[in-house]
Amino acid sequence: METKQQGGRGTGAEAVVGTRERVVRAASRLLQQQGYEGTGIKLIAREAGATLGSVYHFFPGGKEELAVAAIQHGDQEFADMLRTGLDSADDPAVAVENCARHLATALRESGWAEGCPVTSTALETLGRAPRIQEACHEALRNWQSVLSARFTRSGFSVQQANELACTVLAALEGAEVTSQVFRSEEPLLTTGRHMARLVRSWS
Amino acid sequence: METKQQGGRGTGAEAVVGTRERVVRAASRLLQQQGYEGTGIKLIAREAGATLGSVYHFFPGGKEELAVAAIQHGDQEFADMLRTGLDSADDPAVAVENCARHLATALRESGWAEGCPVTSTALETLGRAPRIQEACHEALRNWQSVLSARFTRSGFSVQQANELACTVLAALEGAEVTSQVFRSEEPLLTTGRHMARLVRSWS
Repeated sequence: METKQQGGRGTGAEAVVGTRERVVRAASRLLQQQGYEGTGIKLIAREAGATLGSVYHFFPGGKEELAVAAIQHGDQEFADMLRTGLDSADDPAVAVENCARHLATALRESGWAEGCPVTSTALETLGRAPRIQEACHEALRNWQSVLSARFTRSGFSVQQANELACTVLAALEGAEVTSQVFRSEEPLLTTGRHMARLVRSWS
Repeated sequence: METKQQGGRGTGAEAVVGTRERVVRAASRLLQQQGYEGTGIKLIAREAGATLGSVYHFFPGGKEELAVAAIQHGDQEFADMLRTGLDSADDPAVAVENCARHLATALRESGWAEGCPVTSTALETLGRAPRIQEACHEALRNWQSVLSARFTRSGFSVQQANELACTVLAALEGAEVTSQVFRSEEPLLTTGRHMARLVRSWS
């Protein structure tokens, strides 16, 4: 959903949509960078250039409701990044390796700060905050579906494609954390090469 | 490092070691279950059955110092779990699959709460808390070494073994998060089967 954030001549409605979107984006980035517990709603408002009042206007349920919207935003962004990588080559093995390469580049360019938009929040809220857990669950399922659809398009059976999607996503997620901790693209690049090898092992 | 925690006749020195160890174990479990930011030092003391004063006696640096010790404790525990799985079969592919199976069982038995002892804390403290980051870095390196040593023992070259260790660890870590969010052993079991297939692809 594209929204206008600038361009002073916007109508009132556009300005309202713009603020909500800015708040969601700031929340998504902060959850990615420092997790749920360490991110206060005041900081989110400040980063978004919004008042605390307007944050509560859009999210009367407070931080938990905002986190759900932020996870859903990150879900879409990450799915788009996956699709870009997966559409970059006809060979599904090459496409998977390209995905890992895109993730590594994006991670380095963010100063190793912006990894998976759900991992940290998902782990911090396990067994609590059921709406946040549900949004994290949905995000992982969505990314698996994006990968699985790509594999079935290349001739894998639905079961093979689903299982491969599960493993490739898990490996990329884990490698992203390793790359963040090591401050190095290598774990993602190595894992990308091995996932390509795994995909090729059926051909 | 084994310590006596019970058995009333312990000397003063043993009792002191026992309290420190209880505090470290409680901290490790809580970091695993709910991350760094959401875990207060008072809660750690309560879970360990220790006074706040004794926690600060052992960890004058407070929560950050205690988190480092907790991560190091989790590092050893997870390494032991990996070794048990890796020593369970001669065939390295079977051994890797057994590792995933052990992790899945342990995760289910903990009510999906006790996953990787470093992921959440590592992500929450990225770019901050350098001593905690260093401990997380050490833990990942240690687990990679455990895996790599297993692969070289089965005839892989050092480079192949290191790269495979990187991917297998990343995949298991990512699958563990997925299993926690889905509350299902399937992601770990599927990833384990695929990692076995990857290991076999060189033989």
